Amino acid sequence: MSEKLLYGAAYYAEYMPQDRLEQDMDLLSGAGFDLIRVAESAWSTWEPRDGQFDFSLLLRVLDAAHAHGISVIVGTPTYAIPPWLAKKYPDILSDTHAGPCRYGPRQNFDLTHPGYRFHAERIIRKLAQAVCAHPAVIGWQLDNETKPYDTCSPRAQALFRDWLRERFGTVEALNEEMGLAYWSNSIADWDELPDVRGTINASLGAEYQAFQRRLVTEFLLWQRSILDEYKRPDQFVTHNFDYEWRGYSFGLQPEVDQFAAAQAVDIAGCDIYHPSESGLTGAEIAFGGAMAYALKKAPYLVLETQAQGNLGWLPYPGQLRLQALAHIACGAQGVEYWHWHSIHNAVESYWKGVLSHDMAPGETYREAARIGRELAALSPHLAGMRKKNRAAVMVSTRSQTGLRWFPTCGPSQQPDKNYSDYLRWLCDSLYRLNVEYDVISDGERDFSGYDLVVLPCLYSAPEDLLRTIDSYVQKGGHILATFRTAFADEHLKIYHDAQPHMLTECLGLTYDRFTKPEPGTRLTPRIGISLADAAVTDWMELLRPTSATSLCNYAHPAWSGVPAVTLNDYGAGRAAYLGCCFSPAGLDALLEDLLPQLGVEVGPARFPLIVKRGTAPDGREIIFWLNFSGSVLPVSVPHPAGTFLPEGGAIAADEPFTLPPWGAAVLAEA
Amino acid sequence: MSEKLLYGAAYYAEYMPQDRLEQDMDLLSGAGFDLIRVAESAWSTWEPRDGQFDFSLLLRVLDAAHAHGISVIVGTPTYAIPPWLAKKYPDILSDTHAGPCRYGPRQNFDLTHPGYRFHAERIIRKLAQAVCAHPAVIGWQLDNETKPYDTCSPRAQALFRDWLRERFGTVEALNEEMGLAYWSNSIADWDELPDVRGTINASLGAEYQAFQRRLVTEFLLWQRSILDEYKRPDQFVTHNFDYEWRGYSFGLQPEVDQFAAAQAVDIAGCDIYHPSESGLTGAEIAFGGAMAYALKKAPYLVLETQAQGNLGWLPYPGQLRLQALAHIACGAQGVEYWHWHSIHNAVESYWKGVLSHDMAPGETYREAARIGRELAALSPHLAGMRKKNRAAVMVSTRSQTGLRWFPTCGPSQQPDKNYSDYLRWLCDSLYRLNVEYDVISDGERDFSGYDLVVLPCLYSAPEDLLRTIDSYVQKGGHILATFRTAFADEHLKIYHDAQPHMLTECLGLTYDRFTKPEPGTRLTPRIGISLADAAVTDWMELLRPTSATSLCNYAHPAWSGVPAVTLNDYGAGRAAYLGCCFSPAGLDALLEDLLPQLGVEVGPARFPLIVKRGTAPDGREIIFWLNFSGSVLPVSVPHPAGTFLPEGGAIAADEPFTLPPWGAAVLAEA
Amino acid sequence: MSEKLLYGAAYYAEYMPQDRLEQDMDLLSGAGFDLIRVAESAWSTWEPRDGQFDFSLLLRVLDAAHAHGISVIVGTPTYAIPPWLAKKYPDILSDTHAGPCRYGPRQNFDLTHPGYRFHAERIIRKLAQAVCAHPAVIGWQLDNETKPYDTCSPRAQALFRDWLRERFGTVEALNEEMGLAYWSNSIADWDELPDVRGTINASLGAEYQAFQRRLVTEFLLWQRSILDEYKRPDQFVTHNFDYEWRGYSFGLQPEVDQFAAAQAVDIAGCDIYHPSESGLTGAEIAFGGAMAYALKKAPYLVLETQAQGNLGWLPYPGQLRLQALAHIACGAQGVEYWHWHSIHNAVESYWKGVLSHDMAPGETYREAARIGRELAALSPHLAGMRKKNRAAVMVSTRSQTGLRWFPTCGPSQQPDKNYSDYLRWLCDSLYRLNVEYDVISDGERDFSGYDLVVLPCLYSAPEDLLRTIDSYVQKGGHILATFRTAFADEHLKIYHDAQPHMLTECLGLTYDRFTKPEPGTRLTPRIGISLADAAVTDWMELLRPTSATSLCNYAHPAWSGVPAVTLNDYGAGRAAYLGCCFSPAGLDALLEDLLPQLGVEVGPARFPLIVKRGTAPDGREIIFWLNFSGSVLPVSVPHPAGTFLPEGGAIAADEPFTLPPWGAAVLAEA
Repeated sequence: MSEKLLYGAAYYAEYMPQDRLEQDMDLLSGAGFDLIRVAESAWSTWEPRDGQFDFSLLLRVLDAAHAHGISVIVGTPTYAIPPWLAKKYPDILSDTHAGPCRYGPRQNFDLTHPGYRFHAERIIRKLAQAVCAHPAVIGWQLDNETKPYDTCSPRAQALFRDWLRERFGTVEALNEEMGLAYWSNSIADWDELPDVRGTINASLGAEYQAFQRRLVTEFLLWQRSILDEYKRPDQFVTHNFDYEWRGYSFGLQPEVDQFAAAQAVDIAGCDIYHPSESGLTGAEIAFGGAMAYALKKAPYLVLETQAQGNLGWLPYPGQLRLQALAHIACGAQGVEYWHWHSIHNAVESYWKGVLSHDMAPGETYREAARIGRELAALSPHLAGMRKKNRAAVMVSTRSQTGLRWFPTCGPSQQPDKNYSDYLRWLCDSLYRLNVEYDVISDGERDFSGYDLVVLPCLYSAPEDLLRTIDSYVQKGGHILATFRTAFADEHLKIYHDAQPHMLTECLGLTYDRFTKPEPGTRLTPRIGISLADAAVTDWMELLRPTSATSLCNYAHPAWSGVPAVTLNDYGAGRAAYLGCCFSPAGLDALLEDLLPQLGVEVGPARFPLIVKRGTAPDGREIIFWLNFSGSVLPVSVPHPAGTFLPEGGAIAADEPFTLPPWGAAVLAEA
Repeated sequence: MSEKLLYGAAYYAEYMPQDRLEQDMDLLSGAGFDLIRVAESAWSTWEPRDGQFDFSLLLRVLDAAHAHGISVIVGTPTYAIPPWLAKKYPDILSDTHAGPCRYGPRQNFDLTHPGYRFHAERIIRKLAQAVCAHPAVIGWQLDNETKPYDTCSPRAQALFRDWLRERFGTVEALNEEMGLAYWSNSIADWDELPDVRGTINASLGAEYQAFQRRLVTEFLLWQRSILDEYKRPDQFVTHNFDYEWRGYSFGLQPEVDQFAAAQAVDIAGCDIYHPSESGLTGAEIAFGGAMAYALKKAPYLVLETQAQGNLGWLPYPGQLRLQALAHIACGAQGVEYWHWHSIHNAVESYWKGVLSHDMAPGETYREAARIGRELAALSPHLAGMRKKNRAAVMVSTRSQTGLRWFPTCGPSQQPDKNYSDYLRWLCDSLYRLNVEYDVISDGERDFSGYDLVVLPCLYSAPEDLLRTIDSYVQKGGHILATFRTAFADEHLKIYHDAQPHMLTECLGLTYDRFTKPEPGTRLTPRIGISLADAAVTDWMELLRPTSATSLCNYAHPAWSGVPAVTLNDYGAGRAAYLGCCFSPAGLDALLEDLLPQLGVEVGPARFPLIVKRGTAPDGREIIFWLNFSGSVLPVSVPHPAGTFLPEGGAIAADEPFTLPPWGAAVLAEA
Repeated sequence: MSEKLLYGAAYYAEYMPQDRLEQDMDLLSGAGFDLIRVAESAWSTWEPRDGQFDFSLLLRVLDAAHAHGISVIVGTPTYAIPPWLAKKYPDILSDTHAGPCRYGPRQNFDLTHPGYRFHAERIIRKLAQAVCAHPAVIGWQLDNETKPYDTCSPRAQALFRDWLRERFGTVEALNEEMGLAYWSNSIADWDELPDVRGTINASLGAEYQAFQRRLVTEFLLWQRSILDEYKRPDQFVTHNFDYEWRGYSFGLQPEVDQFAAAQAVDIAGCDIYHPSESGLTGAEIAFGGAMAYALKKAPYLVLETQAQGNLGWLPYPGQLRLQALAHIACGAQGVEYWHWHSIHNAVESYWKGVLSHDMAPGETYREAARIGRELAALSPHLAGMRKKNRAAVMVSTRSQTGLRWFPTCGPSQQPDKNYSDYLRWLCDSLYRLNVEYDVISDGERDFSGYDLVVLPCLYSAPEDLLRTIDSYVQKGGHILATFRTAFADEHLKIYHDAQPHMLTECLGLTYDRFTKPEPGTRLTPRIGISLADAAVTDWMELLRPTSATSLCNYAHPAWSGVPAVTLNDYGAGRAAYLGCCFSPAGLDALLEDLLPQLGVEVGPARFPLIVKRGTAPDGREIIFWLNFSGSVLPVSVPHPAGTFLPEGGAIAADEPFTLPPWGAAVLAEA
């Protein structure tokens, strides 16, 4: 996978309003596209009737691609079932918290259904048999953005009962750990377990969500095991992992344990969509990229990102190139647009591709062609580039679930902020300060590679993780933990001793009171945070330091003098704690001051100038300079002497230069 | 129908809290009411048990009305089924996108249900037999505001399958035109067609809505055919068509193809409700009236409008008269209040009638009585007045459906603006400029009577219509088309060549990029639009003129210099195009400048002074002067010499006069 | 019950994450707690399997409490059913307007279900047998915040049919009174009555809600009758009545007729939760207390109120004591926190108790301990204190239901204000003016004890009540009635003669027109209401005085000169009428002026200084001085000479003193 940068688009011959295969291949190769992704959406095309298979169109596409020097990733077409399959098994559609699904949308079936599994396996085998030997095929995609589709079928719930029995052994142990006595929910026999959809027990509900995530891992491993019977050794397997969605790729995917599921793939893939036009910041590219890189601790493929994308994402001149280089800068080995051509029917017609509905090469195509040429020239330098970061941010789907059940706004309220907001609050501040970070999972137990581990709302934490954190700091590590960390165990049972559980020594504090900040609550002005940025929001804990130093207190009629942010020397290391949330600008100011005390240097470059680094296979340091603004940006910060890629213009150490609006430059050290 | 202006109210003896028939008839005739509408709401009163009929109360009402010189329109009581009928056929209630209906509300049954049809036919026949010979009965109303009630029953969906088979012939043709391959939705047999309620295919979903609209047409024609066996030749048949509802009669009715359904009636009827008090503008009266006039290209009856109406619609002194004269000015042949008396139970108790709940003649009754006298005096002059407009606005329920599936805010967003918003944006600007307009359907192919055809968001347009438009302009006609016109075919398949499809020559432009305007996007200041009114909203297309002239461009950091509004000479005609939406005031300013270039003169009168014209049967021009404001309004605009009706005061040509607050005057040319 | 003030907390041994019974009892008694409430939430603990009972944990708690001198209220555990019971009878879960419930939440079963009744009776009997003789047990709580749980099961609807038949006799009478002819809903046989959930008939729908309220009364009486077979004569029975919930205890409980249901108890109990921190005003404590006092016209127990409570209710220093004294001042005989310890699992984990999750005695515990000592010292003086108020506010669940069907914003709108808003509008103004009030039910027919009866939106009023009101004023009483009073009868049939029905003479006015006030509508400046406070909101009636004097008119372009607030001498009494709603500050200003004319003196103390009075058992007047602000408050208003309780510092008559922030003082007259 490391031999070159890939550039391409999803290609759907089956959606074309007319036959234009040759014309499209000419346009694709004319724009320097060397990759297409095919086949994953069109089960009803490949198997129009139960047991009748027809891959002729697909083979035509593969032949044409091959003739044009274009490589192909083939996706297993299992995420959208054909009408005949829905008709054959009426209970194949997922029965969810919101009730049974209707046929029509993708990803709405019960992936534990034996009929689904039988037919999915058959179409995978037939497809693999049909195309695995084709020379155009360089890799496989398992399914598409797989999720549990909230399956709550009797089948799934029976499996969940087994899962509980396996983990807890007895109903008594389950009752105890989950506190099922509350509101009289305790059970005396496993078969009394009620339909989990009604539960008000957060521990039980969260456990079902963990069980659903496990279904995804098991499903992808199962598909992988089938493909392994067919695929050539030179073909890789990937999957397009995606993110919590907020109209774009916002945060941690709550429905999949991506670290576990990534066992099924050789190279991580991801789908990153983000605001564009004046809203383009690169923050989602950086966060999504860090997540994707983390899955295999290696370069990844951006299997989907926007060309023209959804309404409101029409790229300004220059933005499409900036985005592509930003992906590469974050460690992507390839960039693939979703999709080649804008679709003429159905729900995604206004999610536009490289070509508009008129199917003519327009401005977006022309910009893509310029990028294609540039990437081809950069490829010899950048393919196989590795990232090495000194800071890590820990993500935790268990904690995410915890904050879903117990949001900062209080239970039974509609939260306006969730776990990903606080995760992004920290990640985006690091991003703006140009502190590159790795993402690590809450299953990680080796922090030795990092100077700093950031723990955003690590709400649900097993004791062995907390012990690991304590020991890491004792031995010289640094942590930056936020409010709500170490509050509950892995089953959302709140710890019933001093909070944060097992970290009171390490952090040098405890607390037993917290509230929602009232309007007007502020941080005291001690750390260079402007008054306007000092407003405390969402959550505040009344910290009681034992050994920690308060960096700032609350300013409030009743809680004045109570510490809000603390720093504690512990063993050979140091631990900082944020007892509340406040503005992004306030966090920027705080971290600028605090990070050096936590082992992380902060350079002078600031957003909208984004600086990213990597190590090329030949060992040279590569620096990406990205201008996420519509203004010309003078760059006058320290940098090594080097050469601008791919043209090769030389620049002296620290020599100033400028970036055009939405511009980017790639520097290889001399 | 042309012999006199009618004035009346819906009369519900069956809802009375006490017997007061004689007293009511005295009050009605005392106020100059010469029309009541009866019977349409009370099936359970006329047939209290299955097969037991009792029209005695109805006959008493007819007798009393006749004795007081009051004419009666009898409605078939089929829109609200009795409890015994719901109990007899549990599946008679409509099964909708939102699931099965419960008994209680009106208009909640499956109008394809054979049991419903059997009983509906029987009650119509019994009713007709009972009253058709009565001398008070001058006409019939078919049902009431008929809709498809979103029926999605297995019965309805089987009929839909037939509808598709009839139109597409083969599943292959259906798959192709609708792009069902998308997300694996293509079918191999007709009986695989899934429950349409789940579809994500806009073409299929929109087709079901077209099918539902056809059910309404068929239903009204069926009722008409039954009535035709009974009704006297001197009795007319009507139906009260209504409008897209937004707390009042806002826009085009999406659930009925009113042009088709109007085949079932002799005279169009309509129900117009509108904001009142300080919110009274007359715009709904004008738009609704133009729609109603269009159905038979002839005067219509306002079968329902508000007396005191809903909460917040208490007429100021003078408003009730202004409203009545505005209806007449738009071409109404009669005005009927809903309803005579405020109801003392159930959901519409606060939708108040001419009488308040105290059933005493109050201020509203007294104002109605003054109007009654005035209309009687105006009737000899105005009955049979015709409208003749030089501009036409095309409405299209197919396009409306298209924008519902693909709103300007993007799919899967909750639109805050829909098709009717853009339709009204144009219609209301014409209204404020006192440019009277006809409404025409998208089935119209003869535009020869018009100097200008306005095409608001004609999104879904068959090719023969587009050819007709092109040819109309070539031969000297004028069009004013907006963004999103001619984008998709009649099945919402987006055209896959240069947009606007088939109109690129006529409009002298094309485009392949569009987006949602970012805040701050403006029109360049070239056409007298104030800066405050120049904000671009909702939608913007990046126009690329071929032969068109740009009237103004976008002002935006990235899209500056891109044309937004254009004008093109084409053949003997001229075509204007609005590539974006902007403020109503901005549109007023633009149209004031643009309309004369499109063959339409704009006089000096402006809202709140509204001027409307008609041609009396004796050939005289009638001019209505309407003051939609709470201030005294001086009128000093050109007008012919004439006589104020009905009193006959003379006025010289162009002689100024004043209108009192919410006042109105009717002038007949000398 | 009058021998002492009680202070305590709900205690849930069954929810404990570890065994700490002795430790807790030490902490409880160490804080002066002398009361716990137990057992009501844990049916599945007491009866883990069908028919297997285990009260051992409960008995341990009782023993330990007794050993520590702590009294116990035992609750019947019937509000949350065990899983085995839900499994045994799948139809035991309530089928509601929103469809069938799922197992999980409390209070989600059909309390008419015979299986539920069988098992509920058995667990009550077993529990009573097990603990009634225990010396710690001083009383019983019936169930918990009982509601009808919106049961709409076929069983419940059959009972409703019986209820209707019993009340109306014939379907004809029902059709007539409810106006079922409307939209063809009239029935010819009782078994035609459709599922009431679909009804659009407000009278029928409201009647079902009255029927549901009756289910609650019947249920509590049934539980009481069972307990009476077991309980000792010295044990009392109570129930924790609660309030309309708006994130806190806001208004009148719409689902229970508390006056009827209180027949089942010896002493009224209530659950009052209220905003805290800067939002603490005491208004909910006063309103909720007046409601609770009204139920038995005697002191009551606050069975639940917040210690740390929900997120955002963290008490400032001093607030917990202020709250406790405010409850006592309103007539509470005891204050019990919900709950002792914060829970570690399930939905209410963030509703915090006296102890935080760390189970350690923190700041809240320490403040509670100070209160415990103070209450013990106050108890000899204050236990058995009675309230005697000269003003009464009438509440009416029938009217509340009426305004739910016909809100001020109009039907089919989502109301932003409901009955309780208008009730609280008046009650809170009285509160701020330090006019203490009784609450009386709309079933009350003896007003002789009051100088003033306030009638907020007495929308649904039977004629005998209206006759009583008229006669009360004639004989010298005073009323203050608002808009929408006396508009409909007890079945929501709107009266069809002059409004307000039967009160036109007493009020000296009538009206037949009303509307929603347009922005800008104001009261004329005649009564010292500032311009800013004079905005008319929500509703306005165009009053037509016959004998009444207008206190102020509307200021509005169309309705200027129309009276808005009136006063009328009638017989020996006087009647005021508010024809519209306006600001709280405007109402304060109006009432300050108006109340003395209605027989009620208004002293100089104003919120945030709250003054409350009671009569101690020894006949001394007790005055509570409560500072609901975060500032030091000087008190310089007239008061008798007396002694501050419990310490006994003396103060001369009218001698000024100060209250600390959120402070309180109790004065016993000399």
